[in-house]
Amino acid sequence: MRIPHLASTHDAALASALQAAIDNKTKPQGSLGVLEFVAHRIGLIQQSHTPRIDRAAVVVFAGDHGVVAENISAYPQSVTWQMVENFLQQGAAINVFARQNDCALHIVDAGVNHEFGEREGLVARKLGPGTRNFAQEPAMSAAQCEQALQYGMDLVEAMPVDVIGFGEMGIGNTTAAAAIMHKITGIAVAECVGAGTGLAADGILRKQQVIERAVALHAHAHADTPLEILRTFGGFEIAMIVGAMLKAGERRMVLLIDGFIVTSALLVAAKLQPAILDYCLFSHCSDEHGHRRMLQHLDARPLMQLDLRLGEGTGSALALPLLHAAVNFLAQMATFSSAQVSEKSA
Amino acid sequence: MRIPHLASTHDAALASALQAAIDNKTKPQGSLGVLEFVAHRIGLIQQSHTPRIDRAAVVVFAGDHGVVAENISAYPQSVTWQMVENFLQQGAAINVFARQNDCALHIVDAGVNHEFGEREGLVARKLGPGTRNFAQEPAMSAAQCEQALQYGMDLVEAMPVDVIGFGEMGIGNTTAAAAIMHKITGIAVAECVGAGTGLAADGILRKQQVIERAVALHAHAHADTPLEILRTFGGFEIAMIVGAMLKAGERRMVLLIDGFIVTSALLVAAKLQPAILDYCLFSHCSDEHGHRRMLQHLDARPLMQLDLRLGEGTGSALALPLLHAAVNFLAQMATFSSAQVSEKSA
Repeated sequence: MRIPHLASTHDAALASALQAAIDNKTKPQGSLGVLEFVAHRIGLIQQSHTPRIDRAAVVVFAGDHGVVAENISAYPQSVTWQMVENFLQQGAAINVFARQNDCALHIVDAGVNHEFGEREGLVARKLGPGTRNFAQEPAMSAAQCEQALQYGMDLVEAMPVDVIGFGEMGIGNTTAAAAIMHKITGIAVAECVGAGTGLAADGILRKQQVIERAVALHAHAHADTPLEILRTFGGFEIAMIVGAMLKAGERRMVLLIDGFIVTSALLVAAKLQPAILDYCLFSHCSDEHGHRRMLQHLDARPLMQLDLRLGEGTGSALALPLLHAAVNFLAQMATFSSAQVSEKSA
Repeated sequence: MRIPHLASTHDAALASALQAAIDNKTKPQGSLGVLEFVAHRIGLIQQSHTPRIDRAAVVVFAGDHGVVAENISAYPQSVTWQMVENFLQQGAAINVFARQNDCALHIVDAGVNHEFGEREGLVARKLGPGTRNFAQEPAMSAAQCEQALQYGMDLVEAMPVDVIGFGEMGIGNTTAAAAIMHKITGIAVAECVGAGTGLAADGILRKQQVIERAVALHAHAHADTPLEILRTFGGFEIAMIVGAMLKAGERRMVLLIDGFIVTSALLVAAKLQPAILDYCLFSHCSDEHGHRRMLQHLDARPLMQLDLRLGEGTGSALALPLLHAAVNFLAQMATFSSAQVSEKSA
């Protein structure tokens, strides 16, 4: 397995040209706020004065987590496969939002504890019936982790899109993501842990204690060995997202980052290839405790703050119209000279 | 002129039914965050268990301001009419965003200092070649103010839409809005004043001093006489927006509130009819200094924080997809029972 090498999108001449184009539009300079940043960034990613978003996709990776044996989720593990069925039946939130915003949707079984059989619309990449319980042993083997990364890369290789969002479904995966966050960032476990799908205070404390014991148990996994962190705590879905992100960056797609779990995958990917951050836009700040700190750690400015905490890639699907707005104003607005509007006088 | 009487949207039975419908969707309770609030609110406004948004419009009101004689804007007054021309030529940001989001767009000459002649796509409701300079005398007569309100009401009466956003164009109108904000809320002028289209610090200070002198000069206009505040400081476009808002509430439309100037109109409308706030959704928090305080005063939670400060109704057009997402998840998502997904266990 080869980890793609990602180069920075930095290009001084293009950056200046894009900024000049943005500033010449008929509006006070800077008055489109974050949308100007978005247009500029997409231009650099696509190496284009006229960036476009014609094709967008969200890929939802589903996987189960052995750590649920520690009673760290408000919902039973069976909800993972039941929600995959719901995705296939078009009944989940991500189905609604992807459809609304003309976004292709792909559902991947990365390792759900359920036999789906061959199903239309389900991409079968099952690495096992869920990971092992990382409170006792590494969640996956090195071979499984490598395979997950490769599957993720291969899936994106075959996807001709301009923007890719990542989603996930996996009961227990905020526990995995919090452990990864702690290991990569050094932020205290208590700051990384949240309610997930809806734990009460006692459940959150239990979850924190499980993670604290586990991160001590697996002292060999530390910030300088991101793949070791990934295989020790990660879900199959998280590992596939890491691979998918790296390939998407290599292909110069815009990576639209979702909530807590997807951002935990980005923490790993950015440890492997720091330049990947040049390719990212952050769709929202989740209501899951810890996501705000994650975003701060990445120096990331989220596009939306809607108190979402659903996962599935819903934040990415919802943010897509803002990306369209950014490329559209750049492509379609008149300039001061073309519209004969006077420029600033004071 | 009759000011519409607005009743609260409060309906305990419908509110419970909507909340139950939202909670039965296949997602952790509350996990769609602000979108759940939006769906609930639109249901109450429309008195419906199945709220819909089929038709949306943004109405941009343009007007000039005599107070520009005090040198309080970064752009010359001619930009008002030039930008109206730009709207008519489809070259402005609001054209791009309205088109992208399937939103009808109406442009109204409320009192621009320019003769457009008869023009396709321009609704002529000119009350004069701009207001008078409120640093010296009231901006408009009581009769003009009443006419502006009536025009605004009549325009909305003829508009068959579910959601209405309000936009504005008028060099000098952040100065008018800041004066209105101060008079209605009692917040110090320095907290109400901002850069507008792009004043530097010395310009902002000059603008503040102009407003401070004017609000002292017009001591007769105070929080208990909102229409007197409106006619003394308001632009024709702001007064028409007040009328349009009141009629839109009466017709049980969703009012999608934009930035600093539009929210200043809402401050007046809410003084006249406090129940109007039940009909409002707040599209964004503007980067214009003062808007955040305005929203706090109204106890309003904005949907987006994009550092926009452009006006034209751009925030409202950009927020529309979030309203669609809210009604769509309520209409289209499966329930726990229909999808046979297990409910919370812990």
